[in-house]
Amino acid sequence: MKMMLPIFFIIISLVSSISFASVQDFCVADPKGPQSPAGYSCKNPDQVTENDFVFSGLGKTGNTSNIIKAAVTPAFAPAFAGTNGLGVSMARLDLAAGGVIPLHTHPGASEVLVVVQGTICAGFISSANKVYLKTLNRGDSMVFPQGLLHFQLNSGKGPALAFVAFGSSSPGLQILSFALFANDLPSELVEATTFLSDAEVKKLKGVLGGTN
Amino acid sequence: MKMMLPIFFIIISLVSSISFASVQDFCVADPKGPQSPAGYSCKNPDQVTENDFVFSGLGKTGNTSNIIKAAVTPAFAPAFAGTNGLGVSMARLDLAAGGVIPLHTHPGASEVLVVVQGTICAGFISSANKVYLKTLNRGDSMVFPQGLLHFQLNSGKGPALAFVAFGSSSPGLQILSFALFANDLPSELVEATTFLSDAEVKKLKGVLGGTN
Amino acid sequence: MKMMLPIFFIIISLVSSISFASVQDFCVADPKGPQSPAGYSCKNPDQVTENDFVFSGLGKTGNTSNIIKAAVTPAFAPAFAGTNGLGVSMARLDLAAGGVIPLHTHPGASEVLVVVQGTICAGFISSANKVYLKTLNRGDSMVFPQGLLHFQLNSGKGPALAFVAFGSSSPGLQILSFALFANDLPSELVEATTFLSDAEVKKLKGVLGGTN
Amino acid sequence: MKMMLPIFFIIISLVSSISFASVQDFCVADPKGPQSPAGYSCKNPDQVTENDFVFSGLGKTGNTSNIIKAAVTPAFAPAFAGTNGLGVSMARLDLAAGGVIPLHTHPGASEVLVVVQGTICAGFISSANKVYLKTLNRGDSMVFPQGLLHFQLNSGKGPALAFVAFGSSSPGLQILSFALFANDLPSELVEATTFLSDAEVKKLKGVLGGTN
Amino acid sequence: MKMMLPIFFIIISLVSSISFASVQDFCVADPKGPQSPAGYSCKNPDQVTENDFVFSGLGKTGNTSNIIKAAVTPAFAPAFAGTNGLGVSMARLDLAAGGVIPLHTHPGASEVLVVVQGTICAGFISSANKVYLKTLNRGDSMVFPQGLLHFQLNSGKGPALAFVAFGSSSPGLQILSFALFANDLPSELVEATTFLSDAEVKKLKGVLGGTN
Amino acid sequence: MKMMLPIFFIIISLVSSISFASVQDFCVADPKGPQSPAGYSCKNPDQVTENDFVFSGLGKTGNTSNIIKAAVTPAFAPAFAGTNGLGVSMARLDLAAGGVIPLHTHPGASEVLVVVQGTICAGFISSANKVYLKTLNRGDSMVFPQGLLHFQLNSGKGPALAFVAFGSSSPGLQILSFALFANDLPSELVEATTFLSDAEVKKLKGVLGGTN
Repeated sequence: MKMMLPIFFIIISLVSSISFASVQDFCVADPKGPQSPAGYSCKNPDQVTENDFVFSGLGKTGNTSNIIKAAVTPAFAPAFAGTNGLGVSMARLDLAAGGVIPLHTHPGASEVLVVVQGTICAGFISSANKVYLKTLNRGDSMVFPQGLLHFQLNSGKGPALAFVAFGSSSPGLQILSFALFANDLPSELVEATTFLSDAEVKKLKGVLGGTN
Repeated sequence: MKMMLPIFFIIISLVSSISFASVQDFCVADPKGPQSPAGYSCKNPDQVTENDFVFSGLGKTGNTSNIIKAAVTPAFAPAFAGTNGLGVSMARLDLAAGGVIPLHTHPGASEVLVVVQGTICAGFISSANKVYLKTLNRGDSMVFPQGLLHFQLNSGKGPALAFVAFGSSSPGLQILSFALFANDLPSELVEATTFLSDAEVKKLKGVLGGTN
Repeated sequence: MKMMLPIFFIIISLVSSISFASVQDFCVADPKGPQSPAGYSCKNPDQVTENDFVFSGLGKTGNTSNIIKAAVTPAFAPAFAGTNGLGVSMARLDLAAGGVIPLHTHPGASEVLVVVQGTICAGFISSANKVYLKTLNRGDSMVFPQGLLHFQLNSGKGPALAFVAFGSSSPGLQILSFALFANDLPSELVEATTFLSDAEVKKLKGVLGGTN
Repeated sequence: MKMMLPIFFIIISLVSSISFASVQDFCVADPKGPQSPAGYSCKNPDQVTENDFVFSGLGKTGNTSNIIKAAVTPAFAPAFAGTNGLGVSMARLDLAAGGVIPLHTHPGASEVLVVVQGTICAGFISSANKVYLKTLNRGDSMVFPQGLLHFQLNSGKGPALAFVAFGSSSPGLQILSFALFANDLPSELVEATTFLSDAEVKKLKGVLGGTN
Repeated sequence: MKMMLPIFFIIISLVSSISFASVQDFCVADPKGPQSPAGYSCKNPDQVTENDFVFSGLGKTGNTSNIIKAAVTPAFAPAFAGTNGLGVSMARLDLAAGGVIPLHTHPGASEVLVVVQGTICAGFISSANKVYLKTLNRGDSMVFPQGLLHFQLNSGKGPALAFVAFGSSSPGLQILSFALFANDLPSELVEATTFLSDAEVKKLKGVLGGTN
Repeated sequence: MKMMLPIFFIIISLVSSISFASVQDFCVADPKGPQSPAGYSCKNPDQVTENDFVFSGLGKTGNTSNIIKAAVTPAFAPAFAGTNGLGVSMARLDLAAGGVIPLHTHPGASEVLVVVQGTICAGFISSANKVYLKTLNRGDSMVFPQGLLHFQLNSGKGPALAFVAFGSSSPGLQILSFALFANDLPSELVEATTFLSDAEVKKLKGVLGGTN
């Protein structure tokens, strides 16, 4: 083993010199740095630890004491900093009895959902206005193509839980009724561009906090 | 010039042999072949002509004698076969007085609009439910990020004309009210996932041809 | 309502003509057609049903009566045909007590894992040979960057269950010890390229079914 | 309605918490920040307004009082800051009678042109040295594949106007004769790499401001 | 070892079942199948052999007995079938004394060149018309950004040899003077779009085999 | 020629104004700026010179006086700053007699190798655990698909030299035995996830500098 010493030294040099060239396995999000179209700036690699790749938020039951009796808990960048730029993320859906994730789209990614508990009626609508609708039980999975309107609704008696996967670390989320009724988009524009009645628009703006 | 002959021959060979290696400048859509996630199959290059790269449909005024007093004329693949796989396409918007392109999304691309005639009020809504709204005159352009709800409305007195550009040869088009009301998605699901009232949903299903 | 009839007709035409232009929301895998670098050929859209977007395989407990006391149940294309080309897929990991998903890589995608039951010790190794190691409990998630060696090991007393998400519908899976020892790669090449001893290589080739 | 208050509060919280997760719908260019291979840094979202998504430059007739009797008015990032990273942009072409956009390439995107006024003779040359040539009238559109030499020439009697769309917010623009003759590339290198004569090269360097 | 038998059987099943899910590590070009924007169709994996991943053409000295005293030997798909869809390829450049690879672009990829023998003067021109010029000796490498005009010229006394790498299996190749003068593009269009004189254009069309 | 003066002035203005719009032909790495998932920040274009696009490191014979009798000399970003974001890079492999580049993967790119001197036995292993093995002589090239285990071994009598091309400016490099044995990954985890024996693992940790 005495002779191992010089070889050992050479190996270590070799390992060092080769690995020196191997950057950018990952780009942990540094929310304080400038963002680019490709995502968040990368945290200094020397300060990256295993904790940057781990997220515990998906383990907490979402608070479903709200009008939709449901909660979405996302694990996107930068909340889950290690996913930045890696093209994948997840979220947790909690639906109390009668709960619903209202019609929404993800502008930046397709989604796969898997039911962990309960029964979920899910569907999406294609550009051709065709509806793809299915009742999913525990263990069933369903895919929702990028950018298309879709929803999930607890169609069972007890609570339902699902995990969803996205092909982006920042898939985005646009909830239809919030987009229509929870901001200052003038009622007449909502009406003209959706065919909804003035009464309906104003009622829902009232419920969801919209103005104008 | 007599000595040019052998050199000429060599050059031609060179041109042939080098250009032989240069395939896939383009992939003109062959709608009869199998499609892939990347688009349509490519037409045999030997049968491609200049006509595959030209489309005359954008020159025709769209028929605006309809409920929205507007028309969309797309120049997407495969109608405009030469755009297949090239990551760009266009469309023409005609809006009669009072016309509107209802709220819609393009799941597969961002859009830039330029006004050629008239005045258009356009807007989009972000994932944060913020509204970006602008009145556009002749020559003004506006960009609509991928997958976000947006609309265009003739806010002038005469007809309006715009051309729109997309960063995909198949951007897709999902018109919100057609997605909600022009198919067999059960009314109770529309209501549960949008907060709209049963009366409103059934009225609009009636108008737009939906069932259930 | 009598006057609605012609308008109704116009609308339907409008819906038809606009949606006609909106292809390629999705590309359900047709495993019989030719494949391309972008994935499987697309099934004829007219024959696509909601069942193409649903997969029930993730609901079945994997058979862990094997040497690794673990099972991987993938929901990739074409098994889950609707994911083809959509840039996302999932899989299910079952680990009996003492079970392990051996060191492996996914050449084509990064992965996010979420623990549904039990306790899993998971880790990955960077290009700089640094180890990122973590014990994950129910609800914890961890991200594994594309192409890097990683593993999951049941470090609890009972069975463990996890779902994993990938940023591709065909992430691939290369299990290290099967790649080294379960084929006809000559033992002397394995030894020369890994520094493992001849005895060790031959023993594991014997166990895992390799030859040469 | 009294009971609406707490629900209202919950909804607002829900809207806030969900939208908090939804970043990066867009990345408006901040030309002062560092650039990356993906484009310009993103402006602080809180400072983004509707004006960042609107550009009025395409409405101004370009100055065609120059040697080519033509003008290109680009709406690329960062001039049109809202397009940054969105994979689409436009430009305006003005061609006086006899005007020409000389042979050029866009290294970073394919192009679709639509004629708004006049008659344009346009063409591109493939890697196989085949010419695709067409006379375009008002409303005709033509696609030019990425990176291939192409040109547009006013072949009518009056002025011509066209809008062009690109599948990138920074398509680039390399005009052949400026690249050859409007810089300090030594004449002997131009001659050796193009087969042009010394006299021709020096004459055009003189006209276009080149040296050496 | 007797007890190994059942375990052995289980392992083999495990290997089979897991690897069954792992398609599309590669997509060897099948030039007879339909092409897509993503490249050639994939050869049946069962018929793929090691020979599909090997190419011997780069070992043969190119024939430089021609007007440019140079030769380009590409190893692109489908000549080098295994590269299809993998985003990388190579080529070999042979330059006799005085040889030149004329000004050209690759529409689909950037290039890195490494000199193996001799001395090469290489350069490229940016969109801003700036020239980046360098004399490269044995072992020097230079990068040429996608789509920009560049050239390589033997500036030494003996023959030169270089290998070039591309970030695509089908980078394309458009040689400027062949594009201008080796086809039927009418002389008056060449002249109008390049500012070259009629005499120069006709002379070079004569030399390079062009018509019109 | 007197009349050329004003035209000259106009041309120069035209060149300036058009080229002003043409940014981002390239993004030379500025290692001091923030990184993003798309790569390094871009150096100020005004400070970019031809030297940023040239790298001389591939001309130096690597030091093979080490345990593997081989050396890898990478020309990746940021060492070769001009390649940043351009999707291509190269490296040099030196193998003394008996030398080997141990089993490794590149998480971020496929590779093409060309032999410049000597004889190299190279191989890769697919996800299906199939081995593709070939002896390569001078001029032979071989492609290794992204993320798959592969190796190169000098199977001749003298030294061997090869250049390798990658479809990324940061392909990464994970050497299997260094990943397993040259860090603090606990021996029992290595053993449990590879089936290697405790003795073998500890021996190789000793040789390669690992702990635990």
